[in-house]
Amino acid sequence: MDGGAARPAGPPGLSAYVTLSQLLGLTAIAATGAWLGRYRGGVAWAAALRFNVHPLCMVVGMVFLQGDALLVYRVFRNEAKRSTKVLHALLHGSALLVALVGVVAVFEAHRENGVADMYSLHSWCGMAALVLYVAQWLLGFGFFLFPGASFSLRGRYKPLHVFGGVALLVLSIAACLLGITEMLLFKIRDSYSQFVPEGVLANTLGLLLVAFGLVVGYILTCDDWKRPPLPEELALSMDFKTLTEGESPSGSQ
Amino acid sequence: MDGGAARPAGPPGLSAYVTLSQLLGLTAIAATGAWLGRYRGGVAWAAALRFNVHPLCMVVGMVFLQGDALLVYRVFRNEAKRSTKVLHALLHGSALLVALVGVVAVFEAHRENGVADMYSLHSWCGMAALVLYVAQWLLGFGFFLFPGASFSLRGRYKPLHVFGGVALLVLSIAACLLGITEMLLFKIRDSYSQFVPEGVLANTLGLLLVAFGLVVGYILTCDDWKRPPLPEELALSMDFKTLTEGESPSGSQ
Repeated sequence: MDGGAARPAGPPGLSAYVTLSQLLGLTAIAATGAWLGRYRGGVAWAAALRFNVHPLCMVVGMVFLQGDALLVYRVFRNEAKRSTKVLHALLHGSALLVALVGVVAVFEAHRENGVADMYSLHSWCGMAALVLYVAQWLLGFGFFLFPGASFSLRGRYKPLHVFGGVALLVLSIAACLLGITEMLLFKIRDSYSQFVPEGVLANTLGLLLVAFGLVVGYILTCDDWKRPPLPEELALSMDFKTLTEGESPSGSQ
Repeated sequence: MDGGAARPAGPPGLSAYVTLSQLLGLTAIAATGAWLGRYRGGVAWAAALRFNVHPLCMVVGMVFLQGDALLVYRVFRNEAKRSTKVLHALLHGSALLVALVGVVAVFEAHRENGVADMYSLHSWCGMAALVLYVAQWLLGFGFFLFPGASFSLRGRYKPLHVFGGVALLVLSIAACLLGITEMLLFKIRDSYSQFVPEGVLANTLGLLLVAFGLVVGYILTCDDWKRPPLPEELALSMDFKTLTEGESPSGSQ
């Protein structure tokens, strides 16, 4: 309210949960690296190790970066809405690029080793998540960043966009869990049941991904932590509303 | 408001989404039955078929009944709160009983066949979901049905209970997807990649479970479909609030 004052601190507890989410996400990436580096020969684009690019890229892109893209409206709650939107779109765009590298890696690795594509539940869920993620990005760009969409159209699409964002993170994490299980049953089927270190590490990675999803989901759905509109946005949105309702009296609902 | 009038209809769209959720849930149960009946010899407590009790019970209990228990506040929006609460607790209790039968079945089947327990990511996620589900049921009973908890304590626990409910349904579905993948890789590892009918049916079951979770999740998180307090509850909650704040001025927040 008093323009010269320092930016208000975030609501109580938010910083602690955001920090926890980042610790879980980074630990999950480290656990993926440790699994692939210690037990699967490492990660490289060279033929023998190309497959390993897939799990690393999917954890980094479809889980960590996607999750962080969802958090920007909570973390940068006092920045201008447009800057936050651009950061949200850029983070999702980066997630998509990293994920695409991961998808190319697995198709290439399958082709070189004569393995069939797209037959497993992991591939069905993963591909559904990726295709819907691209669609969600394009729709989000078209509605919220491209200047054509009306205020009332944005308002009607927003709840679906928000629900779709959380649902896609959850589906991506489920696809990762399926990928971990598939990889373990292909690579260490006979020793998995003896609690060998590789199996325990990969299972722990799975739990870390679940925990990351839980904490990000909790932050996003907590009413107290939603981003309140800044004073200047409230004034602007009232102007838009008046304009839109002026054009079409029934347009705002 | 006018007591003699017919009960108001639910908000637009809710019935269609609830119907869709039930169709998806029942189709998923039918697909589980078809998979086990057509390709895995059927379901019975007899030794050879005891394992098959596990997937059927987990889909019926931890997915369908659990999902339906979450929906009762949306579907029975004009019934007295206490009746809806009791139905919610009973449906969750039934889900738990069915799930316990399923868990006993798999431990018994493992014991008889000399298979190790609790080594896979499926078992870790599934057991986490079950233990947390029991804890959530007990906490829910203690806070909301047992008459001891104060109004302000209930208000503080409720958001966590609601988030936990959706998160546990999602985790249960993820555990089912992992179980489907495990079972396929144990039973039809060599033919799975040739798109054999059993693999396609089980993958389709996985997608049906995901779709059920998406539709139930959408119904639960849609602001327009939340259960509004009935007029008599509003009056009652104001009385409670006054009472609680009278006892402890800082107690309500």
